[in-house]
Amino acid sequence: MNIEKQDRPRVVVIGGGFAGLNLAKRINTQKYQVVLIDKNNYHTFQPLLYQVASAGLEPDSIAYPLRKKFRRKKNIHFRIAEVTKVDTKVKTIETSIGPISYDYLVIASGAKTNFFGMKNVEQFSIPMKSLVESLNLRSRILEQFEDALNQDQVNEINKRLTFVIAGGGATGVELAGALAELKNKILPKDYPDLDIRKMQIHLVEGSDRLLASMSTKASEKAERFLKKLGINVWTSMRVEDYDGDIVRMKDGMDIPSKTLIWAAGVSANPIDGFQTDDFERDRFLVDGNCQLLHHEGVFAIGDVASFKPANEDRPLPMLASVAMQQGNYLAKYFNKNLNYKNFKYIDKGTMATIGRNKAVVDLKKFRFSGIFAWFVWMFVHVMLLVGYRNRVIVLVNWFWNYVSYNNGLRLIVRNSKEDPKSNEKRTNKKSVHL
Amino acid sequence: MNIEKQDRPRVVVIGGGFAGLNLAKRINTQKYQVVLIDKNNYHTFQPLLYQVASAGLEPDSIAYPLRKKFRRKKNIHFRIAEVTKVDTKVKTIETSIGPISYDYLVIASGAKTNFFGMKNVEQFSIPMKSLVESLNLRSRILEQFEDALNQDQVNEINKRLTFVIAGGGATGVELAGALAELKNKILPKDYPDLDIRKMQIHLVEGSDRLLASMSTKASEKAERFLKKLGINVWTSMRVEDYDGDIVRMKDGMDIPSKTLIWAAGVSANPIDGFQTDDFERDRFLVDGNCQLLHHEGVFAIGDVASFKPANEDRPLPMLASVAMQQGNYLAKYFNKNLNYKNFKYIDKGTMATIGRNKAVVDLKKFRFSGIFAWFVWMFVHVMLLVGYRNRVIVLVNWFWNYVSYNNGLRLIVRNSKEDPKSNEKRTNKKSVHL
Repeated sequence: MNIEKQDRPRVVVIGGGFAGLNLAKRINTQKYQVVLIDKNNYHTFQPLLYQVASAGLEPDSIAYPLRKKFRRKKNIHFRIAEVTKVDTKVKTIETSIGPISYDYLVIASGAKTNFFGMKNVEQFSIPMKSLVESLNLRSRILEQFEDALNQDQVNEINKRLTFVIAGGGATGVELAGALAELKNKILPKDYPDLDIRKMQIHLVEGSDRLLASMSTKASEKAERFLKKLGINVWTSMRVEDYDGDIVRMKDGMDIPSKTLIWAAGVSANPIDGFQTDDFERDRFLVDGNCQLLHHEGVFAIGDVASFKPANEDRPLPMLASVAMQQGNYLAKYFNKNLNYKNFKYIDKGTMATIGRNKAVVDLKKFRFSGIFAWFVWMFVHVMLLVGYRNRVIVLVNWFWNYVSYNNGLRLIVRNSKEDPKSNEKRTNKKSVHL
Repeated sequence: MNIEKQDRPRVVVIGGGFAGLNLAKRINTQKYQVVLIDKNNYHTFQPLLYQVASAGLEPDSIAYPLRKKFRRKKNIHFRIAEVTKVDTKVKTIETSIGPISYDYLVIASGAKTNFFGMKNVEQFSIPMKSLVESLNLRSRILEQFEDALNQDQVNEINKRLTFVIAGGGATGVELAGALAELKNKILPKDYPDLDIRKMQIHLVEGSDRLLASMSTKASEKAERFLKKLGINVWTSMRVEDYDGDIVRMKDGMDIPSKTLIWAAGVSANPIDGFQTDDFERDRFLVDGNCQLLHHEGVFAIGDVASFKPANEDRPLPMLASVAMQQGNYLAKYFNKNLNYKNFKYIDKGTMATIGRNKAVVDLKKFRFSGIFAWFVWMFVHVMLLVGYRNRVIVLVNWFWNYVSYNNGLRLIVRNSKEDPKSNEKRTNKKSVHL
């Protein structure tokens, strides 16, 4: 590490997601030297990953190079690295590019996909938590159609045209809707040699309703929208096993399918070097200032933090809006010389889109759905995107897709040497397919 | 292969590049059943690959899904496959998805990178002939800067900031210009911790001038433009060896560099199943109708064909414009029931861009350079792009980059598990980095 020590205190931020990015953007770099660490050189706008996976947007539109964000700011140093351990005694983090010392440490390392210990599911299903994973998913989906063309047996064709999505939260619902649009509007023209009616989309949710964190009205609407689009919705149902060919459900039902998309859960992504009593379910226990209970000068924000509002027993949910607000709060806390009131989360509402002209929105006082909700959803998401260029490109794409019923991004970019039919590929989570 | 035999003759086209795509677009599918084979599901607009590599455009803008092109056409079947062999006796091609029979065969398999037998160069340098390769190159270039930040030794820093481009044709010249723009306008702000003056770009050309296929005036202009941008131009020089760390030149000079970009040559990409006398330097010898000399009903067009105009000794050059015209011609030839005058190439001129406001254009009667040439270059390339959406997105990007001096696409999307510093990665040409 060649970052010169300055006479201002050094704040090391681990993670350039919503929490870390907002902190780094707003912290006063006249007062603090900031070192931002991420394993990628870009910030990912996770709420739109599903559109990358369903060929609606290109990856560059929903990712933003972190360096670009800080071009006009001094005393901020970005480095690509993996953090392996924190040593709070000597105030140093161990990373793949060497040790980095800190005066204050902010852990914003987010969450990772949770397979609940099901090794088979982990091996054969496809998660959609990162840009690379959503690009892999896009290629995998399109490959199923290409591959189906080369099959003689109807069962083999059906297996390739059946898509099972585990998890009926926003990610699962939005992805299911996007797949249904592909089925209804785009694929029949692309694949005249296939009977696209055979394409089946199953959405499996463990609890008794979709979008469990939203109102029951939103859940009902979402389910109705999805069924109208032809999706098989299975609430109070769980995926128990998957071997790459057959999805086994809790009640013993089998769904033959070559594609299980895993959107059924996340868990915090903590860092080594802490004790059991620092955590609650892998999330760092923090006080009202987002500071770790037992480590002064170490903070946690976003998904990796378990923040309990005063007089409440349940921590705040793992949501982008919580992460953003905590990032903004902590910047203010630092700028006020660590002397500022406690963090307070303001719930501005939640929303999910199901497809063309269809969305559900829960605000504090209003709940609505349909085309107006859809416009609200689009407006909010475009405004939240980082960078003007990304906003313009996303709007052009959305407008284009809306009027033409024909998104353009159906490229399968992957290693041509790899055999697309071998099962080996499935286990090799390392390979990147654009 | 599940393509039903129809009572119209079947034309099998190998390759969806400029030649194959234009043939498939224009052939009358009332008269012929067309089967188009490509190893990718998209057509690549190769002239703009260098802008993908230099982070100016996203891959989706210069690639076009082949299926989308044929949505409104009947009797045309696209399949992703690798062709391994042609058996002209039984009129069948062997592919990775099984045998396909034909009545007429059109080989349009293009060209591949030529390392002239230098194994070390092949192993350690980066070619830029496909979309995947240009994405790899983009990541590799950006990684050098990230990696340089972690170096203590000035020689190690310099080695990472030194880029050697072998080949002073249009690809090499355009890429060198784009790298110079990154150096001059974008990277100093992105990397305040690096001394970007240390970034050195070397362009190495074997013959005595750049753009050897253009006029000497264009060559001189291009060289002057490049030198003005700070590029080290080495004409009459050749790369002889490369070990991943040091580029060895013909005269014994060494350039320490972690990045050798190979744009120094291509050779035809023929297919097994033919005899030596079918070829000239790996290109299929064809008659005036683009038909193979010794195989009736088998045609070759584009880079893989050696077409000699009447009374000329040299075959037409490997150019996109030749490929497009031959594709169009052959469609007409088929549509006229194989009874039509010989193909005649119309040279509409050549052009190359060096950077912002700088290009050279050779027309039959006019030769010009500078800002007007640059606008002509942009206009022609946008018009040649396949698809309206691609044209709009490319124009938005170009306009954005022009006014903001700040292209947005600086993502390093690659497998995070891979060690970016290991040399193993370099030899693993199979891995795909977006």
